[in-house]
Amino acid sequence: MQELTAPMLLLGGATDAADVRYATGFTAPDPFLFLDDGAHQILLVTLLEYGRAVECAPHCRVLLAKDLPISKTEQHRLSGCAYGLLKLAGRRAVRVSAMFPIAIVRRLEKKGIRVLVLKGGTYPQRVIKSEKEIAEIARSQRAAAAAIQAAAQHLRRCTMDRAGYVRYRGRKLTSEDLRVVIEIELLRHNGNPGDTIVASGPASANPHERGHGPIRAGTPIILDVFPSNRYSGYFGDITRTLVKGRAPDALRRMMQAVHDAQQLALQTVRAGAALATPHKKVVEFFDSRGFKTEFREGVACGFIHGLGHGVGLEIHEAPSLGGRSTGRLRAGHVVTVEPGLYDPQIGGVRFEDTVAVTTTGWRPLAVCRVPWEI
Amino acid sequence: MQELTAPMLLLGGATDAADVRYATGFTAPDPFLFLDDGAHQILLVTLLEYGRAVECAPHCRVLLAKDLPISKTEQHRLSGCAYGLLKLAGRRAVRVSAMFPIAIVRRLEKKGIRVLVLKGGTYPQRVIKSEKEIAEIARSQRAAAAAIQAAAQHLRRCTMDRAGYVRYRGRKLTSEDLRVVIEIELLRHNGNPGDTIVASGPASANPHERGHGPIRAGTPIILDVFPSNRYSGYFGDITRTLVKGRAPDALRRMMQAVHDAQQLALQTVRAGAALATPHKKVVEFFDSRGFKTEFREGVACGFIHGLGHGVGLEIHEAPSLGGRSTGRLRAGHVVTVEPGLYDPQIGGVRFEDTVAVTTTGWRPLAVCRVPWEI
Repeated sequence: MQELTAPMLLLGGATDAADVRYATGFTAPDPFLFLDDGAHQILLVTLLEYGRAVECAPHCRVLLAKDLPISKTEQHRLSGCAYGLLKLAGRRAVRVSAMFPIAIVRRLEKKGIRVLVLKGGTYPQRVIKSEKEIAEIARSQRAAAAAIQAAAQHLRRCTMDRAGYVRYRGRKLTSEDLRVVIEIELLRHNGNPGDTIVASGPASANPHERGHGPIRAGTPIILDVFPSNRYSGYFGDITRTLVKGRAPDALRRMMQAVHDAQQLALQTVRAGAALATPHKKVVEFFDSRGFKTEFREGVACGFIHGLGHGVGLEIHEAPSLGGRSTGRLRAGHVVTVEPGLYDPQIGGVRFEDTVAVTTTGWRPLAVCRVPWEI
Repeated sequence: MQELTAPMLLLGGATDAADVRYATGFTAPDPFLFLDDGAHQILLVTLLEYGRAVECAPHCRVLLAKDLPISKTEQHRLSGCAYGLLKLAGRRAVRVSAMFPIAIVRRLEKKGIRVLVLKGGTYPQRVIKSEKEIAEIARSQRAAAAAIQAAAQHLRRCTMDRAGYVRYRGRKLTSEDLRVVIEIELLRHNGNPGDTIVASGPASANPHERGHGPIRAGTPIILDVFPSNRYSGYFGDITRTLVKGRAPDALRRMMQAVHDAQQLALQTVRAGAALATPHKKVVEFFDSRGFKTEFREGVACGFIHGLGHGVGLEIHEAPSLGGRSTGRLRAGHVVTVEPGLYDPQIGGVRFEDTVAVTTTGWRPLAVCRVPWEI
C-alpha cells in the first residue's frame, strides 16, 4: 500500500533531466531534486536557480535547502536534501527511476526510508506525444531539414579535382567544413547542434563516427542531423547520404537497397503493429538483396543497428524499434525509421526520417528531399 | 581486502561519461559499460559502436554482449551485461561511482555481487590537469574569447533608437540574434556551443537565464560562453558583461565592484591556498561595498552563487570554489573565477575567467579584453 502511494523522487539536470523537464518545464545544468506525489510537486533548487525555477514552474512549490528540517551539513548534500524533502512531506517510502544514483539511495536507506525502483518509466505517458509536443519535434525536424538542404547547396557549389577531392573555392572540403555549414543553419532555426555527424568515405562505415578530414567525390557522405530546440528541448532527427559526383555501382546498389528498405519499413508503421515488425521486415529485405549482417575480418558489416528509436526530450527514448522490441506501436509515438548498410570498403549509407504514428499509418514531420548525387 | 582490489564498473555515455572518456578516450551517445581493475580495461559496446571503440581505445579490450557468459535475455540488459562482465572477470565485488544507477546495483546484489560506492571520485587524479589537458581547455577558452569578441564587434555595428532599443541594420537586436553571432564563431573554432547565455536587462538577474527578446541600451548584457571542443570534449568558460551605450551609475558601480572582486579573488589563487579563501574574500569585499546577499521581496539578490568551479571534460567539475569548500588549491587545478552581483531592478553583472593554478599563482588560458561599454 505504502509502495503504491509513495512519492517519486527525481534528479533533475542529471539522470532524470528529461522527466523533470517534462513534468515541470524546468531544467538546469547541475543536479537538483524534484518530489512528485501526484497531488503536489516540489522543486528543490539552489539560490542560483531560484528565480528561474519560480518562473518556469509556477505550479510547483520551489524550495531552498535552508527550508528543509535538516542540519546545515545535510543541507549541502544532495542525499541530505533528499532525506529532508521526505521528512518535510512526512513520507517513509519513495519511488525512484532505474537510473537514480546509488549513493543517494544508500543514504536514504540508512535513514530508514524504503526506496522502490520504478518499473516501466517515471512518466510512462511521455511515450505518447501530445499535439503540442509533436509540433515542437516538427520544429526541430524542419531545422534539421533546412540544415541538410544547406549542406547539399554547399556541395553543389563545390568542384572535384583530378585526385578525386571535393573542393570549395579551390580549397579541399572537409567533414569539419560541411559540419559548420549545417550547424550554422541549425542555429538560425533555434536548433542546438549537438553532435552532428558528417562522415564520408570508409569512416562512414562506423554509424556514430562524426567524421573528419577531406571529402572525396564518389564516396558516401552521411549527414546525421539531430538538433534540439533551444527553448523547448525537443529533438528532431534526419539522416541523408549524399555523394558528390557519381556513386560507383556498388554504392548505388547499397543506396537503392537502403532507400527501398526505408519505404518498406514505413509501410508497416501504424498503431497496433508490433514494434519489432518494421525492423524484421528490413532484415529480411536486406538478406534477400544479398546484404548480410556479419563480422568480416573483425569488422561489423551490414545492418548493424536497430531500425529506429523514439524521439522527444531525449534523442534516444522509448519506444525502441529493434528486432527484439516487444509491445506495439501506438498513435502518438514519434519514432525514427533509419535503415542503414555499412561496409568497411565502401562506407556507410543511412536514410532516416522521424514520423508521428497514427491509427492508419504515420505522418512525416518535415519534408527533406535531396538528390543522392550532387 | 576484496573491497580494495574490487574492479570499478562505470557507465559510459551516461552517469560516468566524463570518467570513461578520461580513462579510454571513448564516448558514445547511449549508455555502455566499462570495467577497470587497474591492470585491465574492458569496454562493452554494441555492434553499432564496435569499430569506433576499437579505434579510439586501442589499450582496451572491446567486447560485445554475445561474448559474455550469460543468457541471450541477459545480453540485452545493461544489468545482465554488468553481471556478465564480472562473471567473465571472475569477480564477486565491484566498486561504482556515487551516481551509478540503482537498478543495475540491485540486480548485481541479487546475484550475490558486493557493490561498494566509491568515495572521493572515480579517477581522483582527473582534478589535476596534464599539460595536454590544459592545452585542450585553452583551445576552448580561445574559442570562447573569439566568440565574445565577435559579439562585441556586432554590438559596435548596432545603433540605439529613441525608445532605448538596440538596432542592427534597422531591426531590433535580440538576445537570440546575438547568441547566433556567438555560436557561429564557436563553430568556426570547433567549439560545441552548448547553452550559451545572452541575458540582458532584468532577466540577467537570474544567473542561468539564457535570455530572450530585444536588448535595450544602458542595460547589462551577460555573455556566458562555455564551449566544449568537438574532438577532445574539454570545455572552456568565459563570461563578460557588456553595455550598449552608457551604463547608468548604479550599474557602473556594480560592474566596478565585480571587476575589483575578480582581481581580488585572483590575488588569492595559488597552490596551497584554501579552496574557500577566494570566495570568502569576495563576500567580504562585496559586503564592504554595500552589496548584500539576501532575499528582497522573495527574490534572491547579491552574490548568489559560488565563486567558481573546476573545468575539464565536464563544465562543472571538482574542485568547487565556494565558501564551504574544504581542501586546498593544487597546481594543475583548472578553475573559473566568476564573481557576480544580481539585482532584480538593474539586472546582473558577472565576469568570469578560467585559469590554471600554479605553485606561485595562476596562468590565464586565453586573453579576452572587451570594453564594458560599447
